Parts: sequence; C-alpha cells; structure tokens
Amino acid sequence: MLGCGVVGTGVARILREEGALIAARTGRQLDIAHVIVRDAKKKRAHSDLPFHSDAEKAIDDPKTKIVVELMGGTDAAAKYVERALRLGKPVVTANKSLLASRGPQLFKLAREHKTCIAFEASCAGGIPIIDALTRGLVANRIDALVGIVNGTCNFILTQMTRHGWAYRDALAEAQKLGFAEADPTMDVSGRDAAQKLAILASLAFNALVVESDIDVEGIDELQDAEIRYAGELGYVVKLLAMARRRGEKISLRVHPTLVKRDDVLADVNGSFNAISVYGHALGHALFYGRGAGQMPTASAVVADLVHVALGITQLSFSQLRIFPDQVAAASVLPPAEMTGRFYLRLMARDEPGVLAQVTRVLGEKGISLSAILQHESGSAQAVPVVITTHMAREGSVRAALAEIDKLGSIHPPTVCLRILDQPAEFSKD
Amino acid sequence: MLGCGVVGTGVARILREEGALIAARTGRQLDIAHVIVRDAKKKRAHSDLPFHSDAEKAIDDPKTKIVVELMGGTDAAAKYVERALRLGKPVVTANKSLLASRGPQLFKLAREHKTCIAFEASCAGGIPIIDALTRGLVANRIDALVGIVNGTCNFILTQMTRHGWAYRDALAEAQKLGFAEADPTMDVSGRDAAQKLAILASLAFNALVVESDIDVEGIDELQDAEIRYAGELGYVVKLLAMARRRGEKISLRVHPTLVKRDDVLADVNGSFNAISVYGHALGHALFYGRGAGQMPTASAVVADLVHVALGITQLSFSQLRIFPDQVAAASVLPPAEMTGRFYLRLMARDEPGVLAQVTRVLGEKGISLSAILQHESGSAQAVPVVITTHMAREGSVRAALAEIDKLGSIHPPTVCLRILDQPAEFSKD
Repeated sequence: MLGCGVVGTGVARILREEGALIAARTGRQLDIAHVIVRDAKKKRAHSDLPFHSDAEKAIDDPKTKIVVELMGGTDAAAKYVERALRLGKPVVTANKSLLASRGPQLFKLAREHKTCIAFEASCAGGIPIIDALTRGLVANRIDALVGIVNGTCNFILTQMTRHGWAYRDALAEAQKLGFAEADPTMDVSGRDAAQKLAILASLAFNALVVESDIDVEGIDELQDAEIRYAGELGYVVKLLAMARRRGEKISLRVHPTLVKRDDVLADVNGSFNAISVYGHALGHALFYGRGAGQMPTASAVVADLVHVALGITQLSFSQLRIFPDQVAAASVLPPAEMTGRFYLRLMARDEPGVLAQVTRVLGEKGISLSAILQHESGSAQAVPVVITTHMAREGSVRAALAEIDKLGSIHPPTVCLRILDQPAEFSKD
Repeated sequence: MLGCGVVGTGVARILREEGALIAARTGRQLDIAHVIVRDAKKKRAHSDLPFHSDAEKAIDDPKTKIVVELMGGTDAAAKYVERALRLGKPVVTANKSLLASRGPQLFKLAREHKTCIAFEASCAGGIPIIDALTRGLVANRIDALVGIVNGTCNFILTQMTRHGWAYRDALAEAQKLGFAEADPTMDVSGRDAAQKLAILASLAFNALVVESDIDVEGIDELQDAEIRYAGELGYVVKLLAMARRRGEKISLRVHPTLVKRDDVLADVNGSFNAISVYGHALGHALFYGRGAGQMPTASAVVADLVHVALGITQLSFSQLRIFPDQVAAASVLPPAEMTGRFYLRLMARDEPGVLAQVTRVLGEKGISLSAILQHESGSAQAVPVVITTHMAREGSVRAALAEIDKLGSIHPPTVCLRILDQPAEFSKD
C-alpha cells in the first residue's frame, strides 16, 4: 500500500475489522505486506502495520501480489504504478488526477504486461459507478451521464440553499466540518468534477475524453441571489457534470445548473453524490451515495482488491475493449454549439423601455423567453430582472449577452447559468 | 432462449440492434441459436429468428453455449434449467419465482457441474443491484436493505397520492396503461416484492432467506384516507421491502410504509424502483431505475449474457461463497419482536373521554405518542383520529390494538401502518 492517509487508514481498518467476513465471502485472506509512508516513525493508527519508506523494495517484493496506490499526486504515483505494472503486478488506485492525466499510457502499460488497473475508488467514492458502466450497463448505448460528483461543492450549495448563506460563509463552514480542504480550488473550480467526468465519460461513450475537452465553470463565483431566484422559479442550483451524445459528437461540461425541484437530483444533498445514467435499453437509472470520505472510498478500494485477488478484474480488463488506451479520442461538441435552456439575471436601471431593449436583443438572436421575474423595487438603483429562456444555442446566448451588457441601461456583467434539460427516456411513467 | 414474450423480444432486439456495439466492447458476437416458443407458427416480431418448440433439442445442441430462461413459471422452467446445468451450460434467468422457490438446489446443481446461474434480471429489472451486492459492496457488512421493488404497486400508490384516487381506480388505470396485469394478485399482495427481497437479502446477509421468512402485507387493503392523512403529517406511503440486521437476527418484511417526504425514497415515483443499501463502510447508497418493462429487463439479461460469454460470471460464481446453496438459513426476528414507529387510524365516536381511553391502553403497553391528528367533525358519526407513535415493539402495538378495538367507543378495525425508521449511517451530512 503506497500512502496511508485518510483512505489508506480506512482500507487497513476494513481489512482488519472485516477480514473474516471478506474471507468467508471470497475465500481470500488479504494481508498488508508493506505500507509506504514518507515518515515511518510518525505515530499512527494501526501502528503494528509494516510501515516503511522504501516503495521500490515494497513493490519488488515477491510477496507483494497487488499494489494499492493511495499517495495522490501524479509524478511519484506514476513512477511507482509503472514499476508495479512492468512487474506484471495489478494496481488498485483511487487517484483520479493520475488517471485523468496519464490514463491511456498506464492502461496500455498494464495491458502490455498482462496485468490490470482497478480504479473504482477514483470516481464517486463508494458508489460502484465504474462497475455499473463497465458491467451492468454493457448492453446499453449510453445517451447521457448527469452527475453530482463533487461532495464539497454539493455540501456548499446545500448550505447556501438551506440557510441563505453567501458562498464564502458556506465554504468556511465546509472547511470547519472537514468537507472542504484549506485550499479548496480543485473542488470549487469544478476541476475535480471534470477529472471524474473524463473518466466516466470515456467508459460510457467508449471514447477518450480528457479534462481539457470539458467546458468547466465552478461555484466560486456563484452568488446567493441566484440560489434565491432559482428557488422562486422552482429550481435548486447544483454543480452538475454532464456528458451527452449529440449526433456523432459528445457535449461535455461541468457548471452550476438549475435543476427542477421534483427531479431526483434536486434531493441529493450535503456531501452525497449521485450519477444519472440514460441508457437506450435501461432508460434512466441513478446511483446515489457518499462520493468521498474515508470509509466509502475504502469500501471501493477493498472491493477492487477482492476482485483483483479473485482474478476477475484481470479477466474483464483483458477482454473488454472500452478502456482509455483502446478507444479513439472523443469528438467533442464545441460549447457554442450546445443547446439548452438558460437563466439570466440582469441588473437593470429602473427606467422605462429597458426590458424592451433586452427582449429585442434576445429576439434578434432567436432566443425566446420562458419566464421573467422582476419584483417591485424600492430603490432607485439597479433592479434585478431574472429571465429564463426556452431551448437556445449557447453561442447565440453569449452573443446576445455581449450586446445586452453594452446597453447603457444594464449594469454588466449579466449572470448566465444553464438550466438542466433532463434527457428524454424511451418512455414516460 | 427459452420463451420469447415481452422480455425475450427485448433481448432479441438488443442483440440485433446493438450487436455491433456489444461486439466492439466485448470482442464477442452473441448469436441466437434457438428460440423456444409454444406455438412456433404464431406471427411475431423478428420473424426470421429460429423459432421452434423443442426445448430439449435446443438445450442439447452443441452450438448452444448459454441457455437463457425467460419462460416464467416454475415446473417447466426448472426442468429445462436443470437439463442445461447438467450439461455444464450456464443459465441466464429473469425468473424470480424459480429462484425464490428452488434457488439453493439449482445453484448447487450449477456448482456440481462447474457452471453458473446469472440472475441480475430477476430483481429490479435493469438496476444492477445483484452486481452491486455481489461485487461493488463486497467489503461491506450490510446493515439494511430498504427497497421499492414492485413497479406496479409504486405506480398505483403514486396515482393515489397525486390524484387522491381510491385503490380500485388507481389499479384500473395501471391495468389500462399496462403497469398491472389482469390478475394483479402477485404484485398487489406484496408476494412479488417478497420474492425479490428473499433473493436480495440472501446475497446481502450471506444467509438463506426464503419467501416464508418474510412478514408480508400488500397494498390491496390500503385506503386512500391513509395516503391523505400521511400527507398531512409530512409522509408519503410506499410499499417497502426491508431487511435489517438486528443483532444476530434479521428482520424481514414487506408492507405499505410511511416515508418522510424529504427522504430520497419518497421521490421514487411511477413504475420506478429504488433500493437503499446501508453498508458499514459505504454508508447509505441508493440504486434507482426502471424495475420492470421490456427493455430495462432485457438490458440486465444481455449484460449477464455478455459476462457469461466472457467467463467472468463463472469465475465469480465458483469463487464467491455468498450464494443461496452455500449459506446457512437466516435467523429471522419474529414480527412481534420488531420495533418501529407506527401510524394508527381509529374511527372514534365523537364523545367525551374516548381519546383518554385509547391513550390509557397505549400507555399501559409502554407505547408513547408522537403526534395526534383529529379534525373538527361535522358529523355525529365516527370521526377519524390519527396517531403516530414513537419507537415501539410490534407485539405491544398489536396487543394494544386488540384492546382498543374492543372499546365501545371505537369502530373496529383500527388501521395500523408502519413508519419507516430510516437506518442510521455511520455519519451525518
């Protein structure tokens, strides 16, 4: 085991506390031969584990049959993973950054050395979504993935929604409770969600998706006003990661999105994750659970360990032709060509004719309105006007906003969010 | 393929329409060698398939590598499944009645002949829940399963809730739309849900659960008044199938249950199914999707077919020790010893002292009240009084009801429903 932080400690805990149960279920006893840490003298839980700092010795040891990479980061992790694979030793990893940046090369190396990489824990913690995509849904042409895959953002958005808090206050609370890191950039910028989407979309669409293919917007600029107005219109705001088949292309994006309150995704709260999958035969399915945290992630790592120990992962890895080293690059729909519904919040001077100017610009770009929300204003300052659109091309909306923000009667910038256009199923209930 | 009704036609459709996709993903081409039907001359979809009526010839044909049993029923199905297994041919089945009644013997036979039975389609249609229990969650001690596993009942309850309809009207609508059969007894009595729970609980708890272990109550006696009062109290009524670890024993039941409106299960509507699983490491996870219907069920059948063709199911079946032929009988908690919260609806004469009599009986049995709902009555007849309790032993509640129904001031029988006591997770969000 390379690394013994939060998840590693959870893995050790499951193997010790439930080792007998796992042995009874699988006929396999999993023993920890080496635990590689930077400082082997540091006081830790499970102090009797074989801690030391010599990763290469641990990997090379003939007693080591499986290498579990839980170090995080990419450079050192890649070096050790490659070393294990070259020795034909299977690797279990929870490292989504590693897979997002070097997945194809590592998968190819595993294949060349007749071994495998298991990576259920890299996406959505304990939710067996990789298993579902590679196994349970194999008979489906997947049409869409729509997921809440970052627990930190979902926790922050849930707090903002429930308490009317500003982003900063909700972030501080998340940090206090351990749901956000001291430097939350990876999470709140949407990058973490994009890396997970790259892994999931690659498997779902059998096409290589990399992080830079994805149009990403985080929650760090989101104002509490949007959550309030969305609420008035019957929506909640969620950070969604979405991949959808659009003809021969795939649209890929991560951004704050308005979700109808009666949608199952609207009820995914706090640090929970959920991934909706639309399959041509299955219809709509959703996988819900804890997307991070010590024990949920360890649950996925140990499940992978068991299936590698049973030889099942190797068999599946060697036969299925869906992994990032085996598929062509995805053909990505440019963001401007995406269509969807939009939420716009303009700050307008409270004077006659402003709305006429705005709606004229929208009309000229072929954008039709679905709803308008403007409250009576007590102030002589700018008043918020919220507009939702019917289906429109993103490029047209951006062009309209550029014009609207130049109107003298509008205080730029106008806020623009996307509204979830729930994929259609083959049938309705 | 034994049988070619709704699901069989769906399987043929997937293999034909998405055969190229499946071959690209798996390197396997699946061809249908025989389709066994009672009347081979009947006009059907896919009329060029090799329809005939000689099941034994089809099973015995050396070209037949996998037998897919989609006949339904138990006697003939068991005969053919046994024949296939004795020849060492793997069987894929969607037949929950067969597994519920003869699972252990068939699994044992498969094992003796070094082959396997794949049965993902037997529970919850396209939702890969059997996969999750046998694979993704293998590192977890499962503490509870709570599921909506009968789409017919869920459709009926959703209609009753949304439209305020009586059971009979909602059933008629379900029949009209094809969500309920002409004879809906298996579904509305709760038996179908109980058979599924037997299969799922056996895998989750690694103990043999049979249908008769389960305390079953259907929705066929449910009155629309209960749905209305539950709504006033913040609940929706769902038919839940539940299995919970209670010390060394397991409580097993299927019954209409009050679910808090903010629970994710409350939003599972129409013909959708969902299964909540509570694992000691994973925490709460939920699997949602279409639990029946042609294409969702066919999706599960074809996924099983693919994994049998790849040899993965055989490897897993031969090594895991969790199947009904390998485990001891479950130790079942008697219904009277179950604890939970209860909903009671009494029809009381509108006269002084009635509530005092009722609450005295409840108090004597150690049952404390959580809420009471009694509206002003315009009638001199009996008025409904709704009571919800705190946690109480089911045996005590039944004893109290027997006494209450003997009070002269009460029109028996008092209605008694259970309230979902959501299992606790290891942590809260």
